[in-house]
Amino acid sequence: MTMAAPADLAQFLERLTSDIHAMDQWGRVADYIPELARIDPAQFGIAVALADGQMLQAGQAGQRFSIQSISKVFSLACVLGRIGEQIWSRVGREPSGDRFDSILLLEQEKGRPRNPFINAGALVVTDELLTGRTPQQALAEVLGFIRAAAEDPEIHIDKAVAASEAETGHRNKALAHYLRSFGNLRNDPDWTLGTYFHHCAIEMTCVQLARAGRFLAHLPEAPAMLSPAKLRRLNALMMTCGHYDGSGNFAFRVGMPAKSGVGGGLLVIAPGRASIGIWSPGLDAWGNSQMGTLAAERLADFTGWSVFG
Amino acid sequence: MTMAAPADLAQFLERLTSDIHAMDQWGRVADYIPELARIDPAQFGIAVALADGQMLQAGQAGQRFSIQSISKVFSLACVLGRIGEQIWSRVGREPSGDRFDSILLLEQEKGRPRNPFINAGALVVTDELLTGRTPQQALAEVLGFIRAAAEDPEIHIDKAVAASEAETGHRNKALAHYLRSFGNLRNDPDWTLGTYFHHCAIEMTCVQLARAGRFLAHLPEAPAMLSPAKLRRLNALMMTCGHYDGSGNFAFRVGMPAKSGVGGGLLVIAPGRASIGIWSPGLDAWGNSQMGTLAAERLADFTGWSVFG
Amino acid sequence: MTMAAPADLAQFLERLTSDIHAMDQWGRVADYIPELARIDPAQFGIAVALADGQMLQAGQAGQRFSIQSISKVFSLACVLGRIGEQIWSRVGREPSGDRFDSILLLEQEKGRPRNPFINAGALVVTDELLTGRTPQQALAEVLGFIRAAAEDPEIHIDKAVAASEAETGHRNKALAHYLRSFGNLRNDPDWTLGTYFHHCAIEMTCVQLARAGRFLAHLPEAPAMLSPAKLRRLNALMMTCGHYDGSGNFAFRVGMPAKSGVGGGLLVIAPGRASIGIWSPGLDAWGNSQMGTLAAERLADFTGWSVFG
Amino acid sequence: MTMAAPADLAQFLERLTSDIHAMDQWGRVADYIPELARIDPAQFGIAVALADGQMLQAGQAGQRFSIQSISKVFSLACVLGRIGEQIWSRVGREPSGDRFDSILLLEQEKGRPRNPFINAGALVVTDELLTGRTPQQALAEVLGFIRAAAEDPEIHIDKAVAASEAETGHRNKALAHYLRSFGNLRNDPDWTLGTYFHHCAIEMTCVQLARAGRFLAHLPEAPAMLSPAKLRRLNALMMTCGHYDGSGNFAFRVGMPAKSGVGGGLLVIAPGRASIGIWSPGLDAWGNSQMGTLAAERLADFTGWSVFG
Repeated sequence: MTMAAPADLAQFLERLTSDIHAMDQWGRVADYIPELARIDPAQFGIAVALADGQMLQAGQAGQRFSIQSISKVFSLACVLGRIGEQIWSRVGREPSGDRFDSILLLEQEKGRPRNPFINAGALVVTDELLTGRTPQQALAEVLGFIRAAAEDPEIHIDKAVAASEAETGHRNKALAHYLRSFGNLRNDPDWTLGTYFHHCAIEMTCVQLARAGRFLAHLPEAPAMLSPAKLRRLNALMMTCGHYDGSGNFAFRVGMPAKSGVGGGLLVIAPGRASIGIWSPGLDAWGNSQMGTLAAERLADFTGWSVFG
Repeated sequence: MTMAAPADLAQFLERLTSDIHAMDQWGRVADYIPELARIDPAQFGIAVALADGQMLQAGQAGQRFSIQSISKVFSLACVLGRIGEQIWSRVGREPSGDRFDSILLLEQEKGRPRNPFINAGALVVTDELLTGRTPQQALAEVLGFIRAAAEDPEIHIDKAVAASEAETGHRNKALAHYLRSFGNLRNDPDWTLGTYFHHCAIEMTCVQLARAGRFLAHLPEAPAMLSPAKLRRLNALMMTCGHYDGSGNFAFRVGMPAKSGVGGGLLVIAPGRASIGIWSPGLDAWGNSQMGTLAAERLADFTGWSVFG
Repeated sequence: MTMAAPADLAQFLERLTSDIHAMDQWGRVADYIPELARIDPAQFGIAVALADGQMLQAGQAGQRFSIQSISKVFSLACVLGRIGEQIWSRVGREPSGDRFDSILLLEQEKGRPRNPFINAGALVVTDELLTGRTPQQALAEVLGFIRAAAEDPEIHIDKAVAASEAETGHRNKALAHYLRSFGNLRNDPDWTLGTYFHHCAIEMTCVQLARAGRFLAHLPEAPAMLSPAKLRRLNALMMTCGHYDGSGNFAFRVGMPAKSGVGGGLLVIAPGRASIGIWSPGLDAWGNSQMGTLAAERLADFTGWSVFG
Repeated sequence: MTMAAPADLAQFLERLTSDIHAMDQWGRVADYIPELARIDPAQFGIAVALADGQMLQAGQAGQRFSIQSISKVFSLACVLGRIGEQIWSRVGREPSGDRFDSILLLEQEKGRPRNPFINAGALVVTDELLTGRTPQQALAEVLGFIRAAAEDPEIHIDKAVAASEAETGHRNKALAHYLRSFGNLRNDPDWTLGTYFHHCAIEMTCVQLARAGRFLAHLPEAPAMLSPAKLRRLNALMMTCGHYDGSGNFAFRVGMPAKSGVGGGLLVIAPGRASIGIWSPGLDAWGNSQMGTLAAERLADFTGWSVFG
């Protein structure tokens, strides 16, 4: 559990990148969003923001990718900052034991999604974000939050990806109408869906993602975005629910709070120590980045950053 | 996140005990095991084993209680020590999103229980423990493990409780036969059930439980029971699956790996810092100790021991 | 099992009507379609079209009501007439064991609805009806079919009811998008939904409904709408799936193929003997007409028309 | 729909038997009961008891086979005769939409099985049969009922088959304990299971089965076993629930009440016209006799005996 020196860590990241390319087991890119289906899976990048302010990086850490579900962490952070604990009357805090877009549990639980990181739950959070705001204003809020957290104004939405989802995202549309039928969506489903598709379509690099996550790790240099108590709770949710029905496995293998996206991104938090952005677009059977998860596991083994000792 | 001095902590534990008695919201004792149904819910004890070897305690920390599902941590530790990762071919590592004794997911997942802490999973672990052993030998192994971990030979099985469950535990019998029908139980269901009912009927005090958990917190004075890598993984499982379908909520509120039992016990691990035994027999809606969970939350707030920063 | 003479039957229908008013146990009108929520539940009408061409009636047999799901029988009849057995590749023929608008089984069965009489299945049938047609043409086809079967041009769509559902039918919208996400909806969900809401909003009287059902009973005077083999199969589907998760109970109590609608209508078929239209808008716990079901049961007892001997 | 003369029907049955052998598509024998797994699937027999007292037969109509789930009709008939409608407080009357031995719905519906023909429901019926009787007496009652219905004392239990199930029937054991955990099993699960396994192990020929079913068809020569009202209801249950999750399909294809067993037997009822025993041990995907179902469909087409006109 002694911490590796940054120099060693930089070397480790280079070796990890080579190892992953040598393994050549990239998984498959998500094919349900046409714009994402064309991406070459054989890519990998990693960036580590350390407590002392250093940023280590390796591979394609400067390549932009679609953060997709990782955006759910930031939209939830906005809502927690704005209305706090009230959000839990509309969405639960339990792992779902189900796929990210399952509609099953939603029926059993009368329209209250299991947690804010499955799609139904994220739609409710987005819907809350729209209270008293237009979609444009709500998007500006999420984007502003991320830019402030990363201290980087050059973070944007890829409109082609948003449009691609808007055209094909029938399962999300089904979830939105279903939530509405239970009275757990307050805005026009098309507004909520449009806002949701757009914040999922935010593009970032590994470096930007690692910077944006520093506040979650409560790093000394990070901008203060949320109270420490809220940060802890957000990390707890990432630990138990951050990877859909692969969350238990990720906690078991890696031991750090994290959130994945179907674009192949991964934001991993080592509380007090580091914020890590990883990207590799090939996915495993649960829809999480295959090589990204492996990289997180190796990093945890090397650094001893597991929160479990 | 600075650590409280032991003297302050001792005071805090006393105050916590008074507060809990003053609140007078004890929950209901488990009524499906007749021997446990008669216990007065208005009881509370807590013991904290610290890294420096000190043991702080308050309330009824010396009162024996039935550890029930907390025993699943120790039987899993025995199996991990003996056969290691092979056990995961028979049982998963994902939160269940379901009650502790649900049979639903077992059908959907073809007889491979979701995780080792729901009853079906614990039956599989117990069944593995019986490989090459009689029930007496397997029980001796679990009990021996706990006594060694606690460095205390005075830990016993309450045979009246074991007999009470053997008579009334029809749902566990159903689970055992169901596992057998999928070929995921190798021994006579009655052997596996008998062994399971007996290790659940182990009696401990909060002090004994805190001592027995020190190895999980990897405390300097603790006997070495498992490799650090296995400890981390056991803690990860406790974090994501330790409280049935209330696991996400516990992680959110407390932020430490823990395991509850329907006897009202709670073993909470602060990696590197402390092992905590709590007991209050009144349960909440998920079957976890109502005041025990509150005590764990208050303790986490006071000490800053959440693993999430 | 000897058949009652028409004179006796006419007397029976009058007595039945009085009895039902005397019982004063009307159930509750459907409240999820605002236009239907305002109807007084204390109403009852019945019309019996006999094999000899006679039409017996009692109570409010001439009052128009919204046929709602009864329209599913006629839209399915259109599709069976047009493409025949091919429809079964898109929808099953098994009772659902679930509510009429459940989305649960749809997920388990990968987007192939259990049967054509639950909402998801009826949407697929409507979608098939739209192949090579505009919504206007498809609606004209269903309406034309019903008018031809009833030999009555005065059957219309209540546009206020259709509009009321279009505004509030979020669960049906969810089902449509969900089907689309599995590729089991070929048209724009809004087209399919619009067509569906409109054919459900057809208004008929008990007399018109009894006349429209004569072909299903294969009565000598009825217009030939489908081959006898197809009629038998349509009746079989009405028997096993005609009342959602109350179908088994209806078969048990009444013993005749029938289809209910949430408007309180009921079309009951006594093969070779009679076609019966019943209306009473108060519903039971399964969403079927409470007094309508009772009337069908009493009629079966009086006439011996149960198909089960 | 005019009825075929017996002479034509006899010829038809011979031709049907040859056709089925020529098709050579027998399905697979049930393999979960070792004693049944060894049977050659390439066998077929049929016997038709007509209203005029004639018995037509073809193929191996005199070969004994294990009636298995067909016995559920007779045990339910005994219970209906003895306690009548009270049984419905313990078991429902709805198709299950699930496999014959599913435990899923049982959890959702709090231990009240969906219908008396899925295994859980049949266990409840058997348990009711044991009220005030020993297993020996209860078995004597069922066997006595069948012998009286068939007017044939030479119907026996195959004890090797009963013993084979008792050893391997873990899923039924799970169901029994599960029912017990909900308080919906009154006797020792082993008693109920033993009685159940034994009545399922009754051996009959097609001719005996056809004779035993005459009372269900209310044939003039049949012994009176139940009131006409109860007969109708038993037939309704066979129509909606007689073939597990293939019941809708059977009703659609054949249009007659029937009950299948995993031994490959099929009892089909043409109310007022005939009682039909069929046997072919190869099963289809739903666990129903593959060639038996085809034979029933062809027979319905030939005779016009569908109850649906």
